[in-house]
Amino acid sequence: MSLELEQLSIAEQFEHIIQTEDKLAISEFLNEQNISDVAELINQFPDYEAQIISNMALHRAVSVFKILDIAQQKDIIKELPNNKTAELLNELPADDRTDFLEELPKSVIRDLIKLLDPEERKITLSLLGYPEDSVGRLMTPDYVYVYEHNTVEEVFNTIRKFAKNSETVDVIYVINEKGELIDDIKIKSIILASPDKLVDEIIDGRVVALKVTDDQEHANQIFKMNNRVALPVVDDNNILLGIVTIDDMLWVANEEFSEDIQKIGGTEALDEPYLDVPFFKLIQKRVGWLIVLFLSEMLTATAMGYFADEIAKAVVLSIFVPLIMSSGGNSGSQASTLIIQAMAVGDVTLRDWWRVMRREIFSGLTLGTILGIIGFFRIAVWHELMKHGVIQDLYGVHWLEIAFTVGFSLIGVVLWGTLSGSMLPIVLKKFGADPAVSSAPFVATLVDVTGLIIYFSVALLFLKGLLL
Amino acid sequence: MSLELEQLSIAEQFEHIIQTEDKLAISEFLNEQNISDVAELINQFPDYEAQIISNMALHRAVSVFKILDIAQQKDIIKELPNNKTAELLNELPADDRTDFLEELPKSVIRDLIKLLDPEERKITLSLLGYPEDSVGRLMTPDYVYVYEHNTVEEVFNTIRKFAKNSETVDVIYVINEKGELIDDIKIKSIILASPDKLVDEIIDGRVVALKVTDDQEHANQIFKMNNRVALPVVDDNNILLGIVTIDDMLWVANEEFSEDIQKIGGTEALDEPYLDVPFFKLIQKRVGWLIVLFLSEMLTATAMGYFADEIAKAVVLSIFVPLIMSSGGNSGSQASTLIIQAMAVGDVTLRDWWRVMRREIFSGLTLGTILGIIGFFRIAVWHELMKHGVIQDLYGVHWLEIAFTVGFSLIGVVLWGTLSGSMLPIVLKKFGADPAVSSAPFVATLVDVTGLIIYFSVALLFLKGLLL
Repeated sequence: MSLELEQLSIAEQFEHIIQTEDKLAISEFLNEQNISDVAELINQFPDYEAQIISNMALHRAVSVFKILDIAQQKDIIKELPNNKTAELLNELPADDRTDFLEELPKSVIRDLIKLLDPEERKITLSLLGYPEDSVGRLMTPDYVYVYEHNTVEEVFNTIRKFAKNSETVDVIYVINEKGELIDDIKIKSIILASPDKLVDEIIDGRVVALKVTDDQEHANQIFKMNNRVALPVVDDNNILLGIVTIDDMLWVANEEFSEDIQKIGGTEALDEPYLDVPFFKLIQKRVGWLIVLFLSEMLTATAMGYFADEIAKAVVLSIFVPLIMSSGGNSGSQASTLIIQAMAVGDVTLRDWWRVMRREIFSGLTLGTILGIIGFFRIAVWHELMKHGVIQDLYGVHWLEIAFTVGFSLIGVVLWGTLSGSMLPIVLKKFGADPAVSSAPFVATLVDVTGLIIYFSVALLFLKGLLL
Repeated sequence: MSLELEQLSIAEQFEHIIQTEDKLAISEFLNEQNISDVAELINQFPDYEAQIISNMALHRAVSVFKILDIAQQKDIIKELPNNKTAELLNELPADDRTDFLEELPKSVIRDLIKLLDPEERKITLSLLGYPEDSVGRLMTPDYVYVYEHNTVEEVFNTIRKFAKNSETVDVIYVINEKGELIDDIKIKSIILASPDKLVDEIIDGRVVALKVTDDQEHANQIFKMNNRVALPVVDDNNILLGIVTIDDMLWVANEEFSEDIQKIGGTEALDEPYLDVPFFKLIQKRVGWLIVLFLSEMLTATAMGYFADEIAKAVVLSIFVPLIMSSGGNSGSQASTLIIQAMAVGDVTLRDWWRVMRREIFSGLTLGTILGIIGFFRIAVWHELMKHGVIQDLYGVHWLEIAFTVGFSLIGVVLWGTLSGSMLPIVLKKFGADPAVSSAPFVATLVDVTGLIIYFSVALLFLKGLLL
């Protein structure tokens, strides 16, 4: 490459080279770049995506393909000729292949699986047989295993023989003749051991394994707590089925949290990047919850209707309805997201419910009192301004009773918001539902209706015989 | 261990053994368990936490200590005698030590650093010098490096010599005499190469390095895109300073997302597990936003006061205020969390603002129209019920105009909510603020005030001369 080209950005160099249509130069250029830079090129030049993939060395094309968005992957598979697709899919590690295929319609999966070699086809079909979001779907059958009676030298020979096709050699797995998992050994221990030692002598019998049916979120926790870059996956009989590598966990963590955040915001999980979701699917994912919330909020109209006579007598009461309602909603959203997050990372479990409840009762009282005092003084100050004619007098002679109504309502509403916001995720989890469903809007809606009832009840208490 | 004990749970076995006060048996038992199981024991038996740590083999004690909560770590350090603390801190990998120390008050850090060996003290002080949340804080200086002119055999000798003190040998780093990073090699390539080959011959010149000042969130993205279990960290002059291992990334991802979720819920990031945060700190983290939101919501009282005459003339209008407001709030929360999440994982960037805006205008119109139609029919149906005396007649002869007012207000409010909810995170990011601050409650509050104005303006349009 000329010195001049070196100084251009990768994108500029690519634009230059792709126009020469010199296949050799293009593939030489692409093979020199980092995997992540090539992925970036595909983002920038979607028109050339299939061309980029097919002009790279196969093992590098696979590494790029793995990290692309599902939308890009689909496009590329659509554009590639069948023989290229077959090459790519056969070379793709089994776990990444499963990951890609599970996003496709059933009919397309069937066509693509036909392109696989018999061996790969068998593996893929078995991986696709595990439940969605289970460890089985993340598993790769490409790992290095040895036996207890092997010497360290034999282990090295095994590694040399199988390393090429194995996802990692950072951890080696020890099994017995029945295929049961005995232990795992870090490559470090093998390198440090003398060649004539037996595997049996260097293992420590401490192995942490994942069950093939374990939830992926659970696997994430196990990885966090155990210093391993790969964990073995076994079935109910402790037979070693495959391994899961830690890099998959970064994607799992990302996905889980994205889903949680979307649910907290009151949307179904999108499963695709925001900009890639087709418009009507986006609406579909959002409208369900909005309608449910809307129908529930109609109860506020019913509640307000019920108090219509009171409002007619004291219009001033209606002025504070939005303030009271939103304070309950805000404190509720705050409490529910705190608890959802704490449960997601395992800081809070079901058996902590009483500790959470106690904390939130005190929190609700404290926060409510603070807002109540501010609300009280807001009305007192406005009253002074009104008395001196600075603004229109809305409160009249009973301003003090109104101020107390608002102040005490705030304590009640914030306490109720905090309490229901924090308990709802726990109750949902208790009944097997996803705590993240108790989204901020959901809690706000729940609190709105009760908030109105609290407010008008307190108003009756303070203003009966005066304004009401 | 007797067969009987084997059948007991680990916790039961521990309870049994700890009561014998037989130090040897205790430490034998603890050294036989998995790291994660010992951590679990500490969760269950906080009274014995210091005893558990001090009765384990040092390198295992360190592995357990690493994965404990910061609150537990602090407790243990408080309880351990100084010589044990010194042992533990000196043995702790540099990155984990930094991670622990940065959570402590400055005075305590100073005391603890005095316990370190001169060499470890130097390393720790330099790591603590990097900005919080930077890659420098995650870095460990314990890695294996070789030179280009080394043979594979020499590389193996280097590994054997330094592996004990190095965090990982899964990736080996190639530097030149100036200490500049040349490349990284996976251990697999080294094992596969013949002993007399030069390092120079097996490297591919493609290396992805982190800058020591890079943000940890950025590092997380880089790990996701590059198939490595450890990445080298360099300074501005490409001098290799240390490495970051992928397991730290699981913790970073967790922390970042937890912070995002907490902010979306309208709380400052807690930095500690929910149940460990002292009560007054918890209140302090929550009350700030609640007060800000409360003060902003007071504008709704001002707005309602402004329309007090209209409400007095047509009390029926006030009945739908909560419904209209909450619909705007809900659609706004939904839109803002969608965009915050998409920005957090990099699916949406600043330059996508126009695509997002276009999508959200259409989404807002569609969602608003759906809710508007439902709202219209709700009033029509209630009107029928009222006409037949099933419920109290609140709408009167102008029910149709009221229904149109509510329907069209909903379209406007939902459109406005969706639009401001989606644009706010982008605007915040544009001005260098954290998009997650545009929390659901924040957006809801913003939308509430404008929602009221939209509603009463539409009402004037339809009901002027009739009710108003």
